[in-house]
Amino acid sequence: MTEFKFSKRVPADGTDAVGAILKAAADPRIISFAGGLPAPELFPVKEMQAAVDLAFEEHGQEAMQYGAAKGVTALREQILKHVKEKENVTGELENVLVTTGSEQVLDLVGKAFVNPGDTVLVEQPTYLCALDVFKSYGADFVSVATDDDGMKMDALEAALKANPTAKLVYTVPNFQNPTGRTMPADRRQQLAELAAKYDVLVLEDNPYGEIRFAGQHVPAVKSFDKDGHVLYMSTFSKTLAPGFRLGWLVADAKVVDKLTVLKQSADLHTDNLAQYAVVEFLAHNDLDAHVKEISALYGKRKALMVEGIKEYFPAGVKYTDPEGGMFLWVEVPGVKDTVELFKQCLEHNVAFVPGDPFFAGQPQPGAFRLNYSNAEEDKIKAGMKQLGEALQEAVK
Amino acid sequence: MTEFKFSKRVPADGTDAVGAILKAAADPRIISFAGGLPAPELFPVKEMQAAVDLAFEEHGQEAMQYGAAKGVTALREQILKHVKEKENVTGELENVLVTTGSEQVLDLVGKAFVNPGDTVLVEQPTYLCALDVFKSYGADFVSVATDDDGMKMDALEAALKANPTAKLVYTVPNFQNPTGRTMPADRRQQLAELAAKYDVLVLEDNPYGEIRFAGQHVPAVKSFDKDGHVLYMSTFSKTLAPGFRLGWLVADAKVVDKLTVLKQSADLHTDNLAQYAVVEFLAHNDLDAHVKEISALYGKRKALMVEGIKEYFPAGVKYTDPEGGMFLWVEVPGVKDTVELFKQCLEHNVAFVPGDPFFAGQPQPGAFRLNYSNAEEDKIKAGMKQLGEALQEAVK
Repeated sequence: MTEFKFSKRVPADGTDAVGAILKAAADPRIISFAGGLPAPELFPVKEMQAAVDLAFEEHGQEAMQYGAAKGVTALREQILKHVKEKENVTGELENVLVTTGSEQVLDLVGKAFVNPGDTVLVEQPTYLCALDVFKSYGADFVSVATDDDGMKMDALEAALKANPTAKLVYTVPNFQNPTGRTMPADRRQQLAELAAKYDVLVLEDNPYGEIRFAGQHVPAVKSFDKDGHVLYMSTFSKTLAPGFRLGWLVADAKVVDKLTVLKQSADLHTDNLAQYAVVEFLAHNDLDAHVKEISALYGKRKALMVEGIKEYFPAGVKYTDPEGGMFLWVEVPGVKDTVELFKQCLEHNVAFVPGDPFFAGQPQPGAFRLNYSNAEEDKIKAGMKQLGEALQEAVK
Repeated sequence: MTEFKFSKRVPADGTDAVGAILKAAADPRIISFAGGLPAPELFPVKEMQAAVDLAFEEHGQEAMQYGAAKGVTALREQILKHVKEKENVTGELENVLVTTGSEQVLDLVGKAFVNPGDTVLVEQPTYLCALDVFKSYGADFVSVATDDDGMKMDALEAALKANPTAKLVYTVPNFQNPTGRTMPADRRQQLAELAAKYDVLVLEDNPYGEIRFAGQHVPAVKSFDKDGHVLYMSTFSKTLAPGFRLGWLVADAKVVDKLTVLKQSADLHTDNLAQYAVVEFLAHNDLDAHVKEISALYGKRKALMVEGIKEYFPAGVKYTDPEGGMFLWVEVPGVKDTVELFKQCLEHNVAFVPGDPFFAGQPQPGAFRLNYSNAEEDKIKAGMKQLGEALQEAVK
């Protein structure tokens, strides 16, 4: 047997805790709130099939040939129009890069900016895949304290003073993964100002922003950016189809150019057929109406989940009540070992993701993430009852 | 203006020589043999459109939902069947990873194995994108001498003795990019044996192997591998459609597992629709017949190009005469500056890729790569005449 000599970037064996959790949760007897998947019954399958047919009719050879690393021009134009309409984020073609899912933006930004030992500032807790990516490029993390309004700006400024060479602030300002929290406009403006003041980049990750079922739209951090310190990223994964792997970055042209070079080394370019298909879909369908339908369903499911918490969970349990997105966050006081709690709940045939992997530093015991987008209503009702019983037992 | 502090992995400004060359060659007045594109007129557009329709009918929701990082199981099964039939490379599902084009295999292998300062052994010359990728992970290169039969095994063994901690040997054994050369079976067997003896990995990159228009099939290096030292990679880009970005790795399960973790960080998974579409295409079409058609056309174009060399090029020019693939390699004696030669040829409205970027070390002056797959026959005839005139003038 060959002993493979992996690089320092490769995680050690047995460290894929989340993989193990999702695997355990995949048992068909389990009602799982662990994943992070959209509701597949709302995928516009017929409409997308028609869009792909049009893509073949109009662009068959181009869709099958090698394409441009920056992406299909018509799609980049659509993305610019979209971010202008939705987020008042403006730019020219030179400012937009199409990526193989928004995960690839994280990867390219990590590769382009993070030297081993560089500091990346993250929300506490934050999106776990972002931690994995930046870690693979040797990032040191500094966690910034959060409250119900997301990242605290006084804590961020203190962290920036303490880490003057920090490279990047990573934030998910809308309906954050894992907490579901949203950062208000005044903090966003402050964040953009702090980025300029301390000459640090902000990576604004906004996959969920359009999935709003309550409250009012909050302007993007990028909309307050005056000098290119904010890199804005989003995706069609939550509004159309994650399976197509289509994300994007809007940023200063210099950043887009360098990331394009790295993208060429990563996968040359993003699937052309998927890009042409989405161009045709957007030309012939009402994406806003579709997103409204998604938001309405997720809002209904979130409400059912919150009802379940109120009815079945032990007294003293705290939870977020998001105005959009796909996740809410639960904190059960008195729990010491959240992974142990996960195992106890699994015995009651219900699953979540323990909070631990969302923390760059010390995890918060008893915290976990629940997904409401991917479970049908009767499953939410039954699952929350089971989860409540498991928690009652655990905190006894 | 923000000064962006890019990481050490990001190439400096003005270093994308090939990008500049391809841009210059894109002028419509230029007959370009510079690119590396398949002949688009042979793309099976209608058949693939039908396959995508079937994919939507059979797997609409799965194609649009998040999928497995390792790829769609049915496609991985097809790939195993394919590599067994074509290359006598055997494996189970745990041995195959679907990637976003074979470029992503290069990226993941670089990320998984190359620590900064690690040695990667490459053919002299070699595929330039592989150099770019491995360089981005901090590789030091050692070039191994080649002759008409590709990498010389005595030179490789000497290099392995001189670099006992070398991580990787990278080879394109069939119709190599850029030279079009093919390594004979005895060298392949030796290569597999040297890999085991010196405990170094071999990355066998085989995008062109099936596009053979003369001579006999040569067994894969991987087919001589006894203990997992050889990682085998290929793609549907040259046989079906590069625009879909579908490549694959067949390797030891331990390697596949670790690369899967890195792939999750890179782009979560490869486009599901493209994967299901190729599954349906393979189930309902004769890929072998299609590849025969491609090979016949490329063979015809290669012959025209060689005729042009014989008729128009200065005496003493050397060239390869490949039995397959998409490229041939020209060496013009007496030329000192190949980029200067490129500029002179551009003035005659004809373009190639100068050899320089294909060398990890000292480039060979006067060498350049010609692509014959992507130019129609009349363009090849006219272009080779112009190129011959330009060369005659340059070596006067």
